[in-house]
Amino acid sequence: MINNFELDDQIKSALKEDIALGDITTDSLIDNDAMSKAVFISKDTGIIAGLDVSERVFKILDERVAFKKNVKDGCSVKKGDILAEISGPTLALLKAERTALNFLQHLSGIATKTNEYAKIVKDYDVRIVDTRKTTPGLRRLEKYAVKVGGGHNHRYCLSDGVLIKDNHIVAAGGIRQAIKKVRDNIPHTIKIEIETETMDQVNEALEARADIIMLDNMSLEMMKEAVKLINKRAIIEASGNVNLDTVLKIAETGVDIISVGALTHTVKAFDISMRFVS
Amino acid sequence: MINNFELDDQIKSALKEDIALGDITTDSLIDNDAMSKAVFISKDTGIIAGLDVSERVFKILDERVAFKKNVKDGCSVKKGDILAEISGPTLALLKAERTALNFLQHLSGIATKTNEYAKIVKDYDVRIVDTRKTTPGLRRLEKYAVKVGGGHNHRYCLSDGVLIKDNHIVAAGGIRQAIKKVRDNIPHTIKIEIETETMDQVNEALEARADIIMLDNMSLEMMKEAVKLINKRAIIEASGNVNLDTVLKIAETGVDIISVGALTHTVKAFDISMRFVS
Amino acid sequence: MINNFELDDQIKSALKEDIALGDITTDSLIDNDAMSKAVFISKDTGIIAGLDVSERVFKILDERVAFKKNVKDGCSVKKGDILAEISGPTLALLKAERTALNFLQHLSGIATKTNEYAKIVKDYDVRIVDTRKTTPGLRRLEKYAVKVGGGHNHRYCLSDGVLIKDNHIVAAGGIRQAIKKVRDNIPHTIKIEIETETMDQVNEALEARADIIMLDNMSLEMMKEAVKLINKRAIIEASGNVNLDTVLKIAETGVDIISVGALTHTVKAFDISMRFVS
Amino acid sequence: MINNFELDDQIKSALKEDIALGDITTDSLIDNDAMSKAVFISKDTGIIAGLDVSERVFKILDERVAFKKNVKDGCSVKKGDILAEISGPTLALLKAERTALNFLQHLSGIATKTNEYAKIVKDYDVRIVDTRKTTPGLRRLEKYAVKVGGGHNHRYCLSDGVLIKDNHIVAAGGIRQAIKKVRDNIPHTIKIEIETETMDQVNEALEARADIIMLDNMSLEMMKEAVKLINKRAIIEASGNVNLDTVLKIAETGVDIISVGALTHTVKAFDISMRFVS
Amino acid sequence: MINNFELDDQIKSALKEDIALGDITTDSLIDNDAMSKAVFISKDTGIIAGLDVSERVFKILDERVAFKKNVKDGCSVKKGDILAEISGPTLALLKAERTALNFLQHLSGIATKTNEYAKIVKDYDVRIVDTRKTTPGLRRLEKYAVKVGGGHNHRYCLSDGVLIKDNHIVAAGGIRQAIKKVRDNIPHTIKIEIETETMDQVNEALEARADIIMLDNMSLEMMKEAVKLINKRAIIEASGNVNLDTVLKIAETGVDIISVGALTHTVKAFDISMRFVS
Amino acid sequence: MINNFELDDQIKSALKEDIALGDITTDSLIDNDAMSKAVFISKDTGIIAGLDVSERVFKILDERVAFKKNVKDGCSVKKGDILAEISGPTLALLKAERTALNFLQHLSGIATKTNEYAKIVKDYDVRIVDTRKTTPGLRRLEKYAVKVGGGHNHRYCLSDGVLIKDNHIVAAGGIRQAIKKVRDNIPHTIKIEIETETMDQVNEALEARADIIMLDNMSLEMMKEAVKLINKRAIIEASGNVNLDTVLKIAETGVDIISVGALTHTVKAFDISMRFVS
Repeated sequence: MINNFELDDQIKSALKEDIALGDITTDSLIDNDAMSKAVFISKDTGIIAGLDVSERVFKILDERVAFKKNVKDGCSVKKGDILAEISGPTLALLKAERTALNFLQHLSGIATKTNEYAKIVKDYDVRIVDTRKTTPGLRRLEKYAVKVGGGHNHRYCLSDGVLIKDNHIVAAGGIRQAIKKVRDNIPHTIKIEIETETMDQVNEALEARADIIMLDNMSLEMMKEAVKLINKRAIIEASGNVNLDTVLKIAETGVDIISVGALTHTVKAFDISMRFVS
Repeated sequence: MINNFELDDQIKSALKEDIALGDITTDSLIDNDAMSKAVFISKDTGIIAGLDVSERVFKILDERVAFKKNVKDGCSVKKGDILAEISGPTLALLKAERTALNFLQHLSGIATKTNEYAKIVKDYDVRIVDTRKTTPGLRRLEKYAVKVGGGHNHRYCLSDGVLIKDNHIVAAGGIRQAIKKVRDNIPHTIKIEIETETMDQVNEALEARADIIMLDNMSLEMMKEAVKLINKRAIIEASGNVNLDTVLKIAETGVDIISVGALTHTVKAFDISMRFVS
Repeated sequence: MINNFELDDQIKSALKEDIALGDITTDSLIDNDAMSKAVFISKDTGIIAGLDVSERVFKILDERVAFKKNVKDGCSVKKGDILAEISGPTLALLKAERTALNFLQHLSGIATKTNEYAKIVKDYDVRIVDTRKTTPGLRRLEKYAVKVGGGHNHRYCLSDGVLIKDNHIVAAGGIRQAIKKVRDNIPHTIKIEIETETMDQVNEALEARADIIMLDNMSLEMMKEAVKLINKRAIIEASGNVNLDTVLKIAETGVDIISVGALTHTVKAFDISMRFVS
Repeated sequence: MINNFELDDQIKSALKEDIALGDITTDSLIDNDAMSKAVFISKDTGIIAGLDVSERVFKILDERVAFKKNVKDGCSVKKGDILAEISGPTLALLKAERTALNFLQHLSGIATKTNEYAKIVKDYDVRIVDTRKTTPGLRRLEKYAVKVGGGHNHRYCLSDGVLIKDNHIVAAGGIRQAIKKVRDNIPHTIKIEIETETMDQVNEALEARADIIMLDNMSLEMMKEAVKLINKRAIIEASGNVNLDTVLKIAETGVDIISVGALTHTVKAFDISMRFVS
Repeated sequence: MINNFELDDQIKSALKEDIALGDITTDSLIDNDAMSKAVFISKDTGIIAGLDVSERVFKILDERVAFKKNVKDGCSVKKGDILAEISGPTLALLKAERTALNFLQHLSGIATKTNEYAKIVKDYDVRIVDTRKTTPGLRRLEKYAVKVGGGHNHRYCLSDGVLIKDNHIVAAGGIRQAIKKVRDNIPHTIKIEIETETMDQVNEALEARADIIMLDNMSLEMMKEAVKLINKRAIIEASGNVNLDTVLKIAETGVDIISVGALTHTVKAFDISMRFVS
Repeated sequence: MINNFELDDQIKSALKEDIALGDITTDSLIDNDAMSKAVFISKDTGIIAGLDVSERVFKILDERVAFKKNVKDGCSVKKGDILAEISGPTLALLKAERTALNFLQHLSGIATKTNEYAKIVKDYDVRIVDTRKTTPGLRRLEKYAVKVGGGHNHRYCLSDGVLIKDNHIVAAGGIRQAIKKVRDNIPHTIKIEIETETMDQVNEALEARADIIMLDNMSLEMMKEAVKLINKRAIIEASGNVNLDTVLKIAETGVDIISVGALTHTVKAFDISMRFVS
């Protein structure tokens, strides 16, 4: 649950970006006391995320707007479904419409795509997780949408998870040294993940007691070998070349985690429109 | 040209979103005075947008970083091209990498897609324009990327352009009344656009001297008829059902403007990676 | 209509500027639960603007304050008129008084002056418009007050209107080239205005199909000649040397727009005071 | 001396208010690397205030701009004087011009008016001081301009000075009680001022050892009587009905302080323009 | 009384510092509609300050939380006392707990320590005052807590009080010159304080009519001598080496003001915990 | 390493809190071009933290200030040691002094106290860690100071670590259920910690494979028993009643982590002063 105080500034910025100095069309034509009713209609099939955010967009514009949700975040909807009924001052409905939909369509797009991945691997004990390849400024909401869609989150940022890469290993003088140095420095509450590209590296990582081993761009064969080698001694993350065609095969290798950058870096807006009703 | 003071707050927010309390991996492993060199390599084909922004990400992190651009925003690149060479403190390179790429990949994705549309219609006197369906918080940058890709901008927000829609017309009591009322209220520097769905509405809009007439979701036949009817007396914008398959046919109808929501609401990140070099 | 979320930050800043660390006089002397009633009394004759803003000042300080408006923005008032009745915690009334009045007196001063201009030219089909010579930070409110006073707005800022000046023309290599280059770049929703000082320039501007032609500091004779020459083919704006003595003569020349910097750059506060009543 | 960090946010806000999404005229016509020279020319006679602020406007836009001041804040200038020479990227000069002048003209207007008052009373041992009737958001700069013009500042806000008014006295149960209660509460570093309208009140205030006694809207005769009665036992401030015609007579009564709301609530912009030179 | 608008931004920042991206423990385990009751229990003896602030922390998180105060700021409490009863959504109670307590414990710690000083000198006509040695960002709240604890405030910052130190005197060329120069520049509402270390300096300060004379790090003997010499002609502040052991002796010297840096620079959190009740 | 962009806003806020509208003493007495030299002298024995922050305070005030560090954060200093030499405009030195010292003294106080704890247990394989009991707004800096003093950090906030408490367990229906539910929800990169008060709870936590087990307010005997029972199967944190007298005994029990709220909730400023030198 995201509280209002956590998002209000972002929503206000988005509204200001669009309204700026007023809606010169609407302000010229619509009376202050005109009231209207409208609905959000789905024109697509998938998972909804961001309804609370779009409700809040209307409320910030004018607290008199009533926003009745027919579905909740995480619900599966299809073309033609009425997602919400919105009533209140016509001015507010017209001014908030685009901003509310921009949030909702973007987040529902992410939830829907995440869900496609999650459904494919649903018979495996594996998580579909996001990455740090998010849209600048929207990470919290995008990671929220991933969860709504049935995925899980990877580390939120550089501070709440460790990922040791090539350059780190070189700088530290080896996998063992890198893991030790990191472990000595970070809070005891955080696990250590390390990127590997070869079986030798996997072995070294195991010996250094890495908590999580990332198999970076490995072939399916290599992944299977690694899973066997690791044998539950570390959490295994598969990364690279993951798409809707490959994800099942990757899940079959027995990895625990499959990270998918495209969940957030390549988003198809979920088609929703607002229609006035009488 | 976008000046630093216009974007710095947004870049700092994006950096803080990712770095938060420090990069616990890198801070544990890399010396303060270690220096490195890296390159941005294109792994895709298309148009680059956002190089100045990503340079600024590094500079804000540490002003000692040197960022040498091999290409400029608007250049066409292909897989394997080196876009920029970055050198400076290793800490800064590692901490800024993801944020810099998140901006660059998103904006280059928009420029590339815009360019695909623009190239298809390049033999017609028609503009590919964006809409207000942008990512909350990123409108300025996304509209910049559309121009870099060879498109044009529609109104930036609700304040700098008029678009009279159904509900406005109903509230005003007709197209003529709506246009008159708006014209009396808005600055004399702004044109008036009105949405139409039938030839009758086009006619009315013409009689009321609309500056721009939007043909909303019309068939190709209707569009042709409208173009003929309008006969240069107003700017004509085609809207709805525009995609890479339909855009050429729409351009052939003789409209002046084709607006494409997908330029900004459905973005495929342009694949770019940072590689350390020695 | 300006929504609360659009102004609240500005009002809070203004309040913090005055209250800072508390009102040490009032906090020492007035009980938390003392209640009072006060009125805003006009001590001047003119047009009121900013009542909603000053109501909001009190509400932000303490939402229990009741603010009953006897007049609305745009109303004409005279000395002795009661503009509003304010009741609530004495502490809030005393702390918000100055800030609320500073907004209200400034904006009413602008509305009143604008109205003087507008009344003088009321028999002509001409607009009195503002300029970008506004008080830093207050542009939106000042432009709002101009409209309340019966004026119209010119472009809000550098982004929503084109004004081609001398230096632009020189840089572009001539009026024709400048207009073409701008037209190719800007959104199709915005008109092009160009500054002219001679009949030759007016002619060139017409040939290049400028939408708006500014007659800069021209004599009345020249203006008349220009109006005749342009003959409705462009909107005509008179600029320079406009004051209450000259504005009627300028209107008589037949121009469409008269811009007056002094509406916002030289503001006489409208005298209003708050008086406690029992 | 005001340091950059104290004003930069305000200057950036003012610039963003005007530039918003770019200067669509200038961005279309001027090359990124075009360089120009311009001067600020006075078109008025008076005292300059705000040159450092306007220099900073240009620097924030583009740090390559050189701003050579020919005069300093506080200098007296006349029509035709060159105040500063500005050189650098043409884009920056054109984009910053209006914002820089809006600050400079407003502040110089205040300094000039203050100076008119100060010169009239220059043979008396009396201060011309400002009030809290300032433009919302600009108090610091406006109070700075008052000092530059030869005036002095009254309390900055409700926290750094005490002014006991009617309602305070009533609430406290009398002048003596009010002064005692305030003295017990406030920091020992701040003086206590009290408003008086009759000789009786002046007497009471003296007995209660007020540090400063304000003579509110008193006639010249009463003021003289009060000055005699007080006889240096408190600082005396005259308030109300002060204008350029009355200020000398008021000074002659022997008061120490004359406060003038109009210094800041009614500002006439000082006419300055920027001219490009070759 | 501190109004909400004055503290809300600071409280929100504190909450965001702790909640960041959500409370992953609580969000995983507690239902959105679970409701709870809890109490704030004192585990210490002293003076409470900050209850309104901590109430506001809960309200900002979720306005449905009810916060019933059993005591008010300034009350003396002992171990086991119930300070407040809090009821509402369990999620809100758990998420706001730490931030609310961090404010309350810090401020109550200051009030408690101030009160210890104030009680020791309660039979003398002397004030215990704070200094500018406060925690960055918390000055207003800390100075509030000092007053709640029975102390008084010294100047809030560099703008609302004068304190002339060594370096100032040297730069001005002597005590007399320094005081005169300052008096000519500052608002007439503010007193002048000067630091002295010898009887000669005290004498000079008296002759220059300093309003307040600080005895800096003087021995008790010297302080007594200075008090005698000054003989009510200036307010006397003792500064330096003040602690719970020395403060009574210092008060006995007859000084008016004793400033204690440790009130705010060395704070012992007052022990309070939140306990869920059924 | 903390980059400037991460702290500048906080430093500017702190400076504005103190300088507000200028230093009226210094601005009256010191010339703009006067230059001075000063030193930071330790008047205490301990560990320094925050020198970079205090350097930045001066630089933000005036970038011409040179700040030469004689020691680095983490160094041990004694009374009389010169920590840094500062030279530049006298105005800047005087205005920044207090704010720079407020940061430095607070952070050095934390580092020094942490170091006392760390030294006592230095022969044991145990970490001294901080808690979330930090000063609102200063968490990042305070946690930095803890590390500088030889301590380690616990979770930064509610998002980057799990701590399951009583109420969570009750809500989930037991320890096993709580741990499972949390594990299913959180990122795979974060460990799970649970509070225990009895051996039974420790046992249950072990069975549910908690990563970290907190022994809450247990006696030394119980802690020893728990250490033996857990037998390296989980990280063990001791919490409650930790002070300089008890910490060694606690370390001797064999726990891995000792958390100490007092490191940050009860801070004794480290005594440092700035002295002008010639």
